[in-house]
Amino acid sequence: MTGARMRADMAAQPAVLAALAARRSEVRTDLAGDRPAGIVIVARGSSDYAAIFGRYLLEAATGLPVALAAPSLQTLYGVEPRVAGWLAIGISQSGRTPEIVTMLERFGAAGARTVAVTNDVASPLADVAGACVGLDAGVEGAVPATKTFTAQLAAMALIAEALGPVPFGDSDWERLPGIVEEVLADGEPAERAAARLAGGTPAPGAPDLVCIARGYLLCVALEAALKLREAAGVRAEGWSAADFRHGPMTVARGDLPLLAISAAGPAKADVGELTATLRRSGTLVQRLSDEPDAELPYPAGLAEPLSAIPATVRAQQLALALALRRGADPDEPPGLSKVTPTE
Amino acid sequence: MTGARMRADMAAQPAVLAALAARRSEVRTDLAGDRPAGIVIVARGSSDYAAIFGRYLLEAATGLPVALAAPSLQTLYGVEPRVAGWLAIGISQSGRTPEIVTMLERFGAAGARTVAVTNDVASPLADVAGACVGLDAGVEGAVPATKTFTAQLAAMALIAEALGPVPFGDSDWERLPGIVEEVLADGEPAERAAARLAGGTPAPGAPDLVCIARGYLLCVALEAALKLREAAGVRAEGWSAADFRHGPMTVARGDLPLLAISAAGPAKADVGELTATLRRSGTLVQRLSDEPDAELPYPAGLAEPLSAIPATVRAQQLALALALRRGADPDEPPGLSKVTPTE
Repeated sequence: MTGARMRADMAAQPAVLAALAARRSEVRTDLAGDRPAGIVIVARGSSDYAAIFGRYLLEAATGLPVALAAPSLQTLYGVEPRVAGWLAIGISQSGRTPEIVTMLERFGAAGARTVAVTNDVASPLADVAGACVGLDAGVEGAVPATKTFTAQLAAMALIAEALGPVPFGDSDWERLPGIVEEVLADGEPAERAAARLAGGTPAPGAPDLVCIARGYLLCVALEAALKLREAAGVRAEGWSAADFRHGPMTVARGDLPLLAISAAGPAKADVGELTATLRRSGTLVQRLSDEPDAELPYPAGLAEPLSAIPATVRAQQLALALALRRGADPDEPPGLSKVTPTE
Repeated sequence: MTGARMRADMAAQPAVLAALAARRSEVRTDLAGDRPAGIVIVARGSSDYAAIFGRYLLEAATGLPVALAAPSLQTLYGVEPRVAGWLAIGISQSGRTPEIVTMLERFGAAGARTVAVTNDVASPLADVAGACVGLDAGVEGAVPATKTFTAQLAAMALIAEALGPVPFGDSDWERLPGIVEEVLADGEPAERAAARLAGGTPAPGAPDLVCIARGYLLCVALEAALKLREAAGVRAEGWSAADFRHGPMTVARGDLPLLAISAAGPAKADVGELTATLRRSGTLVQRLSDEPDAELPYPAGLAEPLSAIPATVRAQQLALALALRRGADPDEPPGLSKVTPTE
C-alpha cells in the first residue's frame, strides 16, 4: 500500500512529455492533408476526458464543432456512419478496448481518415488506424492511468496544432516538462490538502469532494474526480462550473468541499466567481491553480490549454496522498482492471 | 408543499404530446432541404438531456456524428465557427438563456441552418433561428421542468424524423399520449418506490440513488437524477451503464441504491446484466421499465426511443413522491430559478 507503482508512473511524466513535444513536426507531417469535413472522437473512461480536452482544442484549431462518438449507436443499434472526408480519432491507452477499435474501423470503412492515440503502437487500435500518435509512455505499473493520461492530453494538443492555429506554441512546449518536474518535486501542498480533506466530515449524502473547472481545464476536474475515486475510493464528482450552477449547486448548501481548478485565462473569472459564492455559503474551497497563494499551486507561465497537464499532475498527487491516508491501495484498487471491455 | 404546480404541469403532458404528434408533417415541411454537412446541438441543464436524446436519434437518422456544442469556446474563447451547410439546433425551454441564443445566432451567421426548440415562439432564441419547433406546452408552473422536457424529447424526435429514417413511426405517435396518460393515472408504483428509498440508509458518502440507462434512454437516467436533485433534494447521479462500469461502480460496493432504466430494445441486455451483477453484491435495485413486474413499470408497446417519454414521466412521479415524503417543496426548490444565465 505504498503507491510505489503509481508514484513511479507519475515520475515518468516529464520525460514522456518532453519526448512527445520533440515529435511535433512528425505529427504535423503524419496529419497533413485536406481540412476535414467534420471531426469525431471515440473514447471511454479516462480517455474520454482526454477526448473532451481534444474537442476544445480541435474546435479552436478548426472552427468545426467536434462530436464525441456514442459507441452504442454502432455497437448496439448498427447505425451506418456517413463520415466521408471526416477525421476520426480513437483514444485508448491500451489500444484494446474492443468498442473503440470497432468504431474507429467502421469510421475508416465509411471514408473517414482515422488516427489512433494509444500507448501501444502494435495494438489493434493502431492497426486499424490510418495514422497513429504513439504515447511512448512505457508500461503503466498502477491501474489508475497517470502518465498515459497526461501523454494523451499532450497528443491531442499535437494533433490540434497539426490541424490549425492553437493558443499555445514553442515556448509552452519547452517549459512544460520542467513545470511538471517542479510540481512532482514538491509534494507538500498535496499532503496538506489531503489532511484538510481528511479532517472534514461531509454531511450525510454529500460527496467527499466536488471538482469544478471550465473550458480547457474541464478535463482536469473530471480526471481529478475519477482519479480520487479510483485511487483513493473518495466519492468525488467532476463538474463544469457552468453546469454546476444549473444543478448540483442547489443540493450543495455549504456542506460539500470543493476543489476549484483554474489557470490564467478566459475561464478563470467564472470559476473564481462561483468559488466566491460558495465560500460565502460556508463551503471549504481549495484552489488548484497557477496563483501562488492557491492551496494546490502549480507554476504559472504556461498557456491556458497546456496548463491542464501540470494541473492534472497536482490532482494525481492529491489522489495518491488521500489514498495513502485512507489506507487504500492506489496501485491495485479493488474491482478495477486496466482494460474494461464494453460491447 | 403540496407539489400542486408540478402535478398540474405533469398532468398536461398527454395533451402537449398529442399536439406535437399532430404537427409531424408541419415540422417535416419546415425542415425540408438538403442533407446537412454536419449537425450541432446547443443546450444547457435539462435541455442538455433532450440534446443527448436528440443526438442519438439524429445520428440514427442521418449517420452523421452529432456534436453537442461547448458554449465556452465561443462565449469565452471567441472561436469562429466554420459550419457552412451544417444544421444547428438550439434547445431552451424559455428561449432566453443568453449563451444559447448567442451560440445559435453565431452558427447562423457562419452559414448553418438554425432551428430553435423552445416553449416561447416569441423568445430571442426563436427570433434568431431560421425555423422554430414550438413546444406549445403552456406556462410551466413549477420550477423543475416536466412537461417542457418531455415536449423537448418529442420535438427532437420530430426533427429526426424530418431528416431521415428513424426506428419509430405512426403507431408509436398514436399510442404515446395514451401511454403517458396511463402512467399518470397510476401513482402507486412511484409511492411504493419512494417509500422503499426513504427507508434505506445510504452508507456515509454514498449517493441516495444512482440512475443508470444506456442508448436512447440514457437521457432518462440523467433527467431522473436531475429531477430528484431539483425537486426532492435527493443526492442522485445519472450514468450510462457503460461509463458506470468504468468508474463509479468501483466505489459502489453494494451500498448504493440503483434505479435501472430500460425499455425493450438493444440496450436492455446491457442494463440487465449490470443490474444482475449489482444485485448479487447486495445493491437495492429498482427497475423502471416496460416489464410488467418492474418496481416502476410503464406500459410496453412503444418503440425504444419514444419509450424515453413515459419512462421520464415515471421518474417525475418518483421525484414528486420523494419530495413530498421529505417535506421538500418541489414547486419552488431553494436556490433554483427557471432561467440560469451563464456567460
